[in-house]
Amino acid sequence: MLVVMKALATQEEIQAVCDRIESLGFRAHPLPGAQRTAIGITGNQGEVDRGNLEEMSGVAEVIRVSKPYKLVSRDVKEDDTVIRFPGTSASIGGASLAIIAGPCSIESREQAFAIAEQVALAGAQFFRGGAYKPRTSPYAFQGLGEEALKIMAEVRDRFGLRIVTEAIDHEALELVAEYADVIQIGARNMQNFSLLKAAGRKRKPVLLKRGLAATLDEFLMAAEYIMSEGNYEVILCERGVRTFADHTRNTLDLSIVPAVQRLSHLPILVDPSHGTGKRNKVLPLARAAVAVGADGLIIEVHHQPDRALSDGAQSIYPEQFAQLMDECSRIAAVLHRSVPHGIQLEQTAGLAAH
Amino acid sequence: MLVVMKALATQEEIQAVCDRIESLGFRAHPLPGAQRTAIGITGNQGEVDRGNLEEMSGVAEVIRVSKPYKLVSRDVKEDDTVIRFPGTSASIGGASLAIIAGPCSIESREQAFAIAEQVALAGAQFFRGGAYKPRTSPYAFQGLGEEALKIMAEVRDRFGLRIVTEAIDHEALELVAEYADVIQIGARNMQNFSLLKAAGRKRKPVLLKRGLAATLDEFLMAAEYIMSEGNYEVILCERGVRTFADHTRNTLDLSIVPAVQRLSHLPILVDPSHGTGKRNKVLPLARAAVAVGADGLIIEVHHQPDRALSDGAQSIYPEQFAQLMDECSRIAAVLHRSVPHGIQLEQTAGLAAH
Amino acid sequence: MLVVMKALATQEEIQAVCDRIESLGFRAHPLPGAQRTAIGITGNQGEVDRGNLEEMSGVAEVIRVSKPYKLVSRDVKEDDTVIRFPGTSASIGGASLAIIAGPCSIESREQAFAIAEQVALAGAQFFRGGAYKPRTSPYAFQGLGEEALKIMAEVRDRFGLRIVTEAIDHEALELVAEYADVIQIGARNMQNFSLLKAAGRKRKPVLLKRGLAATLDEFLMAAEYIMSEGNYEVILCERGVRTFADHTRNTLDLSIVPAVQRLSHLPILVDPSHGTGKRNKVLPLARAAVAVGADGLIIEVHHQPDRALSDGAQSIYPEQFAQLMDECSRIAAVLHRSVPHGIQLEQTAGLAAH
Amino acid sequence: MLVVMKALATQEEIQAVCDRIESLGFRAHPLPGAQRTAIGITGNQGEVDRGNLEEMSGVAEVIRVSKPYKLVSRDVKEDDTVIRFPGTSASIGGASLAIIAGPCSIESREQAFAIAEQVALAGAQFFRGGAYKPRTSPYAFQGLGEEALKIMAEVRDRFGLRIVTEAIDHEALELVAEYADVIQIGARNMQNFSLLKAAGRKRKPVLLKRGLAATLDEFLMAAEYIMSEGNYEVILCERGVRTFADHTRNTLDLSIVPAVQRLSHLPILVDPSHGTGKRNKVLPLARAAVAVGADGLIIEVHHQPDRALSDGAQSIYPEQFAQLMDECSRIAAVLHRSVPHGIQLEQTAGLAAH
Repeated sequence: MLVVMKALATQEEIQAVCDRIESLGFRAHPLPGAQRTAIGITGNQGEVDRGNLEEMSGVAEVIRVSKPYKLVSRDVKEDDTVIRFPGTSASIGGASLAIIAGPCSIESREQAFAIAEQVALAGAQFFRGGAYKPRTSPYAFQGLGEEALKIMAEVRDRFGLRIVTEAIDHEALELVAEYADVIQIGARNMQNFSLLKAAGRKRKPVLLKRGLAATLDEFLMAAEYIMSEGNYEVILCERGVRTFADHTRNTLDLSIVPAVQRLSHLPILVDPSHGTGKRNKVLPLARAAVAVGADGLIIEVHHQPDRALSDGAQSIYPEQFAQLMDECSRIAAVLHRSVPHGIQLEQTAGLAAH
Repeated sequence: MLVVMKALATQEEIQAVCDRIESLGFRAHPLPGAQRTAIGITGNQGEVDRGNLEEMSGVAEVIRVSKPYKLVSRDVKEDDTVIRFPGTSASIGGASLAIIAGPCSIESREQAFAIAEQVALAGAQFFRGGAYKPRTSPYAFQGLGEEALKIMAEVRDRFGLRIVTEAIDHEALELVAEYADVIQIGARNMQNFSLLKAAGRKRKPVLLKRGLAATLDEFLMAAEYIMSEGNYEVILCERGVRTFADHTRNTLDLSIVPAVQRLSHLPILVDPSHGTGKRNKVLPLARAAVAVGADGLIIEVHHQPDRALSDGAQSIYPEQFAQLMDECSRIAAVLHRSVPHGIQLEQTAGLAAH
Repeated sequence: MLVVMKALATQEEIQAVCDRIESLGFRAHPLPGAQRTAIGITGNQGEVDRGNLEEMSGVAEVIRVSKPYKLVSRDVKEDDTVIRFPGTSASIGGASLAIIAGPCSIESREQAFAIAEQVALAGAQFFRGGAYKPRTSPYAFQGLGEEALKIMAEVRDRFGLRIVTEAIDHEALELVAEYADVIQIGARNMQNFSLLKAAGRKRKPVLLKRGLAATLDEFLMAAEYIMSEGNYEVILCERGVRTFADHTRNTLDLSIVPAVQRLSHLPILVDPSHGTGKRNKVLPLARAAVAVGADGLIIEVHHQPDRALSDGAQSIYPEQFAQLMDECSRIAAVLHRSVPHGIQLEQTAGLAAH
Repeated sequence: MLVVMKALATQEEIQAVCDRIESLGFRAHPLPGAQRTAIGITGNQGEVDRGNLEEMSGVAEVIRVSKPYKLVSRDVKEDDTVIRFPGTSASIGGASLAIIAGPCSIESREQAFAIAEQVALAGAQFFRGGAYKPRTSPYAFQGLGEEALKIMAEVRDRFGLRIVTEAIDHEALELVAEYADVIQIGARNMQNFSLLKAAGRKRKPVLLKRGLAATLDEFLMAAEYIMSEGNYEVILCERGVRTFADHTRNTLDLSIVPAVQRLSHLPILVDPSHGTGKRNKVLPLARAAVAVGADGLIIEVHHQPDRALSDGAQSIYPEQFAQLMDECSRIAAVLHRSVPHGIQLEQTAGLAAH
């Protein structure tokens, strides 16, 4: 913390601020400048309430210096976190990009299998699909619930894909943690601290999406909530923020990828489907996400987006996904990263003949 | 819904869009214009997925026309909703402004009583205080929980104030619904749909705060979630939105007050404490909120903000609150509204002598 | 400036940063803390380039402390600036609110006179009207130019109103400075520094509107540009900023009024017409602006808004303006301020009979 | 335009809206729906003022349908605009990416030559450098003016680079148009319509940067201003927009690249230097810009950024620029585009030995 005094602050006002700081159990370091005096505060393990100081006579402003997060920080763990999935070659955070693909919502066993086969063929190692959908309207399709989870478990058995799906509340969390491989916390729940803590007590990796108006600090602090409960396998995901711009549903903020990588050891993915909300923008922004250095992608794919029960407009066709995988793998190579398409292709090639 | 075709769209493309619309069970109304053709869609009770149409050949854009909310709308209920509290003169939504005041967090019985007495003396009919606090950091003070609820129940008995406190999850909701008079849903949970539905099944009024990046439609749809479960006593509350502006913690969007009143019958309050995050801005913005036509205010008051465990910087002193009540009641008079200070003053005057 | 080192920064890295600071001609003040070291920089009259320091090994971040503005600051001039207009009782910045009213564009002599008479009768001391219009489309009505300026000069002679009109470029500035009493610089030109400097060389007061995405600092620095050329009569004006919110054309940020008043001696007005873009929101937001403590209002009034050539949707009718003046004067009284309606009413009462 | 009536609007109200539309010289097309009636408006070559209709009894909202731009639109010109520079292989808008590089400000002949040689060696075909700088503070370095233009003309002669530099006002525009190959209009002047029109009367290509809070429509309309004066060689440039996010100076909105390409035939570049404001983010975002499909890049390069008089923090070193060119050219290849490094390398190789 740093207290900046007004240019005309008196010596008495400066002293009063120092006394207040010391009375709160901290050390005050007055720092006279050419124009004004600043007072540094040290020894604050917890929070100093800047407001109380800000209101004192002679004070111009109070600036917070130390970052509040600990476990997410590279200060604590310098090496990148890589999340592995025993018994598979899939991982999130290493040199190989993690590709998560699937429909917005699981609508039926047939739909899930049709899409899963296509995305596995194209190289995805993870299958996503909504069982519980956070919908703006209470009258919109809300997901199939546990039935969808069971279908996804079958998808895993059949195609070897790891399952990623969202838990929208504590009740759903219990079931998602049981059936899925990765628990997703959606953007609207990024500061549902109760749910974050509960996810932190599960022993499955958590994919945390950035809130629509979350700063970098808030995003990292949300991850800190999960980690503070003992679950260190957190995956961050940029999915667009809300701005005045109206040509896309959200504004995809790709600069947060290098920003996170500078401060934190956690992997960060990008979701260009929600980040743009428009099918014709998914491919270019997916390429950009790989080029900026993201650790992977989440892509909505639907074999019949015209009939999708939710978010059809942003779902791409399987053949577009194959093109995306191809282009992204060539861009990944420029960054000395890879997309594990070859192996998956062989593994699932036989399935296409069924 | 309205589909706008490109200027050069062919007759075949227009027909294909019409056929698609009809195949989805709706009626298509082509509307040729000087520059281009638009196609109206009617008969859509539910949602048409605009994306599927947007991607068709020859289509320029798809525009949504009907509003998705029903129960919150003045189309359904023309008269203002007034929420009454049996056995008291307190109400929310009528000619008399609802004034909710108290500390950010309940810290102790002494603190709660000291503040409650002061705000009751100044005319507040409602007492607010956090029992469960949604904090950005997992290491910050999280509230006293049920102990705080019990203290607030005592405050109600002693001062006749109705109790407003936040439920941050389902577990807290059960207790809040038992002890409090009004269940608050915080900004970070505005789209925690699971919590909204649970609150909709309670028989206590719900105070719903606008999310940090919520549009008017999303705000009203969140209220619709609560109402769709049968609880029609919903109170909206503007508390600032997130913008690039950095002179206040949030940007208080007072224009949403007349915007809500035009579309909905629900009462809307304003919280200038969170809306600005700065003690020296609470009084001017509280005056502005009354002047714009808000149905009431939520104000953080602390008798010793220097020692507050949370949000001290935005809490005002009891004497500032008394000034606020005085100025706001005179502004309310210009709008033919009142602040019920006289009666409360007499009722609690004796208490000050205790 | 303050350089915050990383928690694990070495003594050598800290020393290197200090050496760099000193080599740039400043003084470095290392400030060891419990978690990390911060280094204060003093002696910087001009700018230190924070980027160079930010990139050094061991540096976590660089924070700017001193404010760059001087002449606009209360540090330099403690008393409120009041701008007077010799030969009239009109002023901007004192206890009496400055009310500026008139059409978006001057369309004809008849239109200007009809509106001017109405706003003078209701108590406005200033008449606004566009001669040069900054329009988003090159195909939209661009204003009558000098002809409009001449009409406004006649309005001044006839009704005793002071004239406020916008200069969109250097050419227009010369003419506006000749004909008008107050030179307006629009939001889109708030950082047209060349125009600001030219306005600073004129001897007429300048009304500076906040840019659509301007921070408080940038807004004050734009005023500093004008003042640095020797023109100290600058009037600030909030007119809404751009956010994600879509229920108004812009989001009116009333909290900037007390924020400006805390830092600067310059008067600040509010424009609820552009700030909301909707006729039905002008009155409530005008009341709120007076209640928050603004030094005056700018209101678009049109006697036939249905036929207005620009911005008719946000122009209010003369009878709505009279109601606005009545309500605002009663709210002003709560703040011990006044709206000078009585005098104007007598002066112009006879005109109504013409 | 489309007028949406309220659910309970009467037949008389609907008729009144239709009558109004017809009285304005347009055609009204009432379109009854299941829930409410909408009324289409056609025949509007110019603008219909939506506000007047919006205020009529029974009207819920008015929606604009036709786009106001013409010359920038693909409706008018389907093929991509490619801007060529006679006597050179340089172009903007074709398969070969346009790379513009150089310092923020021209500080001296030595500095300009040192940087120009480096960027030419690495493959840039265009040299940028500020002669006139739009600075937030009037006390900051404002550029060398015409002296800088002369230095850049020498750079062109020596290295064969085309010159891009900003015109901040009409006076600067005359000189820039004389000395430079491309006239840049900065973000702060994107809606300085007077300057746009003047640039439209010059016979040099204009590089138009997106304003900090400009929507896609406003951006295209600003280009339309230039084109409406007869200059069809307009180059768009995304350089970041202002949001709540604070980890970069601006939020680079890469999704506008495909959005522009869908609507307009004009080329669009990306400026990751201003778009992020941080040296360590320029390379990843430059890669992303090429991957998303931008037609080129503008990059700030300085051989001694520690001593740069402006924006040193976002300038990259020559060796970083060389790496950027290498990585971007490999990503460009994935999109079947190229970066013309080979040729330039030979042309200027001899110079390095001087």
